[in-house]
Amino acid sequence: MPERNVVNLPEALSQINEQWSPKILAKVNDQYVKIAKIENEFVWHKHDNEDELFYIIKGSLQMQYEDETIVLNEGDMHVVPKGVMHNPVAKQECWIMLVEPVATAHTGDIVTDRTRSLEEQLS
Amino acid sequence: MPERNVVNLPEALSQINEQWSPKILAKVNDQYVKIAKIENEFVWHKHDNEDELFYIIKGSLQMQYEDETIVLNEGDMHVVPKGVMHNPVAKQECWIMLVEPVATAHTGDIVTDRTRSLEEQLS
Repeated sequence: MPERNVVNLPEALSQINEQWSPKILAKVNDQYVKIAKIENEFVWHKHDNEDELFYIIKGSLQMQYEDETIVLNEGDMHVVPKGVMHNPVAKQECWIMLVEPVATAHTGDIVTDRTRSLEEQLS
Repeated sequence: MPERNVVNLPEALSQINEQWSPKILAKVNDQYVKIAKIENEFVWHKHDNEDELFYIIKGSLQMQYEDETIVLNEGDMHVVPKGVMHNPVAKQECWIMLVEPVATAHTGDIVTDRTRSLEEQLS
């Protein structure tokens, strides 16, 4: 996001066509703010060194952990702690904002056909 | 925010009584996520080493810079870059989310009767 830019998150999300393909909207210090549309199951993964913040703009998702599942609804915020296996699942399309370090790979230490490079996320 | 906590931002904001008194909701890596209710003028200040992200949950605010004023409405996100003088002004009460480093003093290098300690922000 160039200096003094204003981005409307619901508007920016409405322009995303591809699910599970995060787009970087802003950099604040050493963190990226990203948005994504997600639906169905992602992939079990973890980020060894990075916490990952989820904020629900629209819809709801289940954050699956190995020992429990947490439901996140619109307006809810939740931090997935570093090093913890998790799998976001959305029964219907869900619009999310993420805050995570610039270094974070969104599929963690897993590479799948859903893995998007930083170049793709910045496009 | 303890591990696996879920916080609903509008609900948490509705429970804040004091304006201009940020509350820390979550820590993601080296950043705090805060919420605040603001109304009228704050104070001109800057943060020498920290960017500060504003996200508007409800209402609108004007971000005054020395050379221009930017209007932020509900759903809008904006990053105030480090080292830049700014002054948020809300004509009516505005509910905001902030992301900024743990080290950031919310009134920057200015101390006023509006300055709140980290202990107050964590309460």
